[in-house]
Amino acid sequence: MSSYNVAVVGASGAVGREMVKVLAERDFPVKNLRLLATERSAGTEISFKGEKLVVEVTKPGVFHNIDIALFSAGSGPSREIAPMAVKEGAIVIDNSNAFRMEDNVPLVVPEINPEDILDHQGIIANPNCSTIQMVVALKPIYDEVGIKRIIVSTYQAVSGTGKKAIDELNKQVEQYLKGEKLEASVYPYQIAFNVLPHIDVFEENGYTLEEMKMVRETRKILHDPKIAVTATAARVPVFYGHSEAVNIETVKKISVDRVKELLTAAEGVKVVDDPENLLYPLALMSEEDDDVLVGRLREDISVEKGISMWIVGNNLRKGAALNAVQIAERLIQA
Amino acid sequence: MSSYNVAVVGASGAVGREMVKVLAERDFPVKNLRLLATERSAGTEISFKGEKLVVEVTKPGVFHNIDIALFSAGSGPSREIAPMAVKEGAIVIDNSNAFRMEDNVPLVVPEINPEDILDHQGIIANPNCSTIQMVVALKPIYDEVGIKRIIVSTYQAVSGTGKKAIDELNKQVEQYLKGEKLEASVYPYQIAFNVLPHIDVFEENGYTLEEMKMVRETRKILHDPKIAVTATAARVPVFYGHSEAVNIETVKKISVDRVKELLTAAEGVKVVDDPENLLYPLALMSEEDDDVLVGRLREDISVEKGISMWIVGNNLRKGAALNAVQIAERLIQA
Repeated sequence: MSSYNVAVVGASGAVGREMVKVLAERDFPVKNLRLLATERSAGTEISFKGEKLVVEVTKPGVFHNIDIALFSAGSGPSREIAPMAVKEGAIVIDNSNAFRMEDNVPLVVPEINPEDILDHQGIIANPNCSTIQMVVALKPIYDEVGIKRIIVSTYQAVSGTGKKAIDELNKQVEQYLKGEKLEASVYPYQIAFNVLPHIDVFEENGYTLEEMKMVRETRKILHDPKIAVTATAARVPVFYGHSEAVNIETVKKISVDRVKELLTAAEGVKVVDDPENLLYPLALMSEEDDDVLVGRLREDISVEKGISMWIVGNNLRKGAALNAVQIAERLIQA
Repeated sequence: MSSYNVAVVGASGAVGREMVKVLAERDFPVKNLRLLATERSAGTEISFKGEKLVVEVTKPGVFHNIDIALFSAGSGPSREIAPMAVKEGAIVIDNSNAFRMEDNVPLVVPEINPEDILDHQGIIANPNCSTIQMVVALKPIYDEVGIKRIIVSTYQAVSGTGKKAIDELNKQVEQYLKGEKLEASVYPYQIAFNVLPHIDVFEENGYTLEEMKMVRETRKILHDPKIAVTATAARVPVFYGHSEAVNIETVKKISVDRVKELLTAAEGVKVVDDPENLLYPLALMSEEDDDVLVGRLREDISVEKGISMWIVGNNLRKGAALNAVQIAERLIQA
């Protein structure tokens, strides 16, 4: 088997570190691994398969020998650096929002549209965390009976914002117990013991960008520009694991039993749905499970053909690092 | 003005204590206030208008002189004690689920259906906290253009479960910071840094009782047995304030601007909706505001005639104690 020179850009962040871990865990055929970040993080040591690697500064020329560059550096840096990496010969798998909706950039969830990878022109985009876990759970139903409309409300973990937000929640909880004033800087308001119905910037239609990502990306991944999607994205005081309340309207009627059959057979999905024994997906469960967890499956009593469910996914892994590495795995098989 | 002998049953609980506070704050014309609870809480002292009142045991005969008894004792105790209180001459305003759906029991939100109070036969029911805040926000829209379908996902605070749950979240946060194992006893799983898609017991259709309360109670309060409602109720690690993501489909089209006008004029509602200035309802805001807070108002892009919004309410006050006292206020005006 061939092996590849791989770079991780944004290696010291929450998702970047997870990318390094996932490359090791899944034994991705790495010849040489290069960890890149801004000057602020240069010098940081990160372990990879027992070896300590030092984070270097991303600068022109660093991608000359790189086959695959996994980016988790944010939209601004991606926009600036990814084209340079492509010019220097790397294929970029980008976790940011920078290129997702561009026509010549495939947006890929390997369980759903792996064939789109072949259309890349140097950049492949990793979808938004909230979108990935939702489409992984919905695709088997979509294929069987069609889906007309999706209504989703999210309960998103702070790790989706990055390491700074994890630290902020930790600090606020400490301040709370000490009876001190809770300080907010990453989020505009206290996140501890609160819910913020606001993720990413607001668009003109009153939705946030995070909500519109779920609308636009779902359509692109499913190759269905007409599917109706509405989302409300909220941040909750949880460290890891995004939860989603999802209601769908299907084209043809489908029973809950059939949905369970389909999801039980689906790749990347685990059905956790046994209310009698108090089994349903929990954010905490996602810390130890790479599958998308689906439960609370029931017929939506408010519509003729509808299903309600609760979807939980590990936002740093399947929602980001794992999906990116899975794209890389398909890429080298192609 | 007349004054009344009032009893609070379950006076030492989270809602019971709030009832005593609200009676004082709103200067309800109390002649004599009697605080009742189980033997376990008897002897507890609770202040009322500068006076220390001692909680007594609820037993036959205690309601003989009582005009109005506010119950927040749970469904089981209410089923047992409320009929006795009525026999002894009191009018019961019950905060539990025990009688809400009974035909001869009015289910009242004073801003919405105060006239139903007149039909009581001794017991008037206070709706579920999640239902109250939702219908207060939706009623002005319902009256203007009609509502066909409601899809709601809740983010509910632990205080809805009672004082024990507040203590449990506090304790788990302490255990977390000490690096100890987090112990759960009130909830089946850890609530700190987690989301539980499970409130109250499961019904046969896969919904929880909490979710079905929102379906059934909304229909009863609006006198609209046909309105389609689906709910997903989840518990989040928040002490006070329930948040709700609500999508509605209206009969006639309505603009966001018109919704804002209607809600700005509505009793018991405050519009908090200025995304440019990062203003939207927060669970924390409800600790200092008795109004139902509505924001994130936008046209639902997934349906021809729909509105999406974010609704926050103080679950102990408007969701319970305050609504009960407001019912009592209407009752004595009748």
